[in-house]
Amino acid sequence: MLVDQINAISGCFDLAAQDAVYRAIFTRRDVRSHFLPDPIGDEVLVRLLLAAHHAPSVGFMQPWNFIVIRDRQRREHVRDLFFAARQQELPEIAEERRELYRKLKLEGICESPLNLVVTCDRSRSANSPLGRWHNPEMDLYSTVCAVQNFWLAARAEGVGVGWVSILDREALKQLLGIPDHVVPVAYLCVGHVSEFAQKPDLERHGWGSRLPLADLIMSEVFSGQGEDALKAVAADMGGFPAGR
Amino acid sequence: MLVDQINAISGCFDLAAQDAVYRAIFTRRDVRSHFLPDPIGDEVLVRLLLAAHHAPSVGFMQPWNFIVIRDRQRREHVRDLFFAARQQELPEIAEERRELYRKLKLEGICESPLNLVVTCDRSRSANSPLGRWHNPEMDLYSTVCAVQNFWLAARAEGVGVGWVSILDREALKQLLGIPDHVVPVAYLCVGHVSEFAQKPDLERHGWGSRLPLADLIMSEVFSGQGEDALKAVAADMGGFPAGR
Repeated sequence: MLVDQINAISGCFDLAAQDAVYRAIFTRRDVRSHFLPDPIGDEVLVRLLLAAHHAPSVGFMQPWNFIVIRDRQRREHVRDLFFAARQQELPEIAEERRELYRKLKLEGICESPLNLVVTCDRSRSANSPLGRWHNPEMDLYSTVCAVQNFWLAARAEGVGVGWVSILDREALKQLLGIPDHVVPVAYLCVGHVSEFAQKPDLERHGWGSRLPLADLIMSEVFSGQGEDALKAVAADMGGFPAGR
Repeated sequence: MLVDQINAISGCFDLAAQDAVYRAIFTRRDVRSHFLPDPIGDEVLVRLLLAAHHAPSVGFMQPWNFIVIRDRQRREHVRDLFFAARQQELPEIAEERRELYRKLKLEGICESPLNLVVTCDRSRSANSPLGRWHNPEMDLYSTVCAVQNFWLAARAEGVGVGWVSILDREALKQLLGIPDHVVPVAYLCVGHVSEFAQKPDLERHGWGSRLPLADLIMSEVFSGQGEDALKAVAADMGGFPAGR
């Protein structure tokens, strides 16, 4: 790598660069609609996968793999798994919310041109599991960091990503031949989009509201009072900190 | 929010903005050294917390809380927990790597001016756990996405973050009064830094090497062959895609 490139990447972010990072974070959406059928170019997809691959990982374990699914019939099978899982989940939803639940679009498996499964190989650091003796789930968390990197890079590239969590994991493992020691952490629908919604779908449809940030801050211990100045700034700032 | 702000945030990213996002992703480090004692301003910290708070969350559950720890004595207690946990973990490490393990700096609990615990309240959507019937761990994963947002925003602000995973969770819960239904997902050391290392510490010290991305890509099913064009692009690109 050239020296000037190294300097460029290790240096400071100016305000415009900071704002770009915040913009990706604040305008990222869990996309279920608005997918376009256009294929994702290999260069774009590799950049997104590189972003995922540069996530932090416990003990530098890099436990992830990326299964690229394009086959229409396979995606239809996965969508069938989603429909079955949604039926199973429905009775768990409070009765007065079930009509809304049924109307929500919660996947874009067949509308998006590409599906991606991000897996976690739990055996990858079997020899020296640094950082996992007390918290063996850290490899799963590392894999989630990879998903979030992918998601944010995708937002910057104009690519929508939706995480489908209503799936029976064992059925999915069987369909994709995933061995016992590997966990499919995320099933993602990926594609260019016509737009990114201004608010999360579940907020727009009244499923929930954004909690006030100040209410989520605690001081020193759980439920600890204090940090009044910090909370006041949080209450003032309200939303996206553009135009500082 | 003003209309022009909305247009600004929902629009496309130009190349410079895309590169800023990639730069944050590729130059983010798990920081253990290089912390400066300077306090983090409230405005900066609120922006980082807002970034965390805009992570995706299953069923729009927003299960996270943020415990801000500044008290020196409390941080020393946590560091003692780390020392004890490291001793417990040591026998799990392959014998020939133990000397290196002992030398690695794996926390910056007292050098950083601020510690942050990101917790997951597993009861927050007890009424209607959308997306969690089959995968109840999704709320933990959402919380990890919040951590990664925080981490990337911090990189853009010149703030270093280190995730300490060598801690006995039950001991930490007791120390911080965290109730049973809440999981401390991440213990973070946070502070301005003198530099960001060019490579991850564990890579620099020879604990592990970056795996080739092409080797991690699978086609259609687990271990599925194919995606040769994609893998060729991955092998060509090698690293940080600057200067497109």
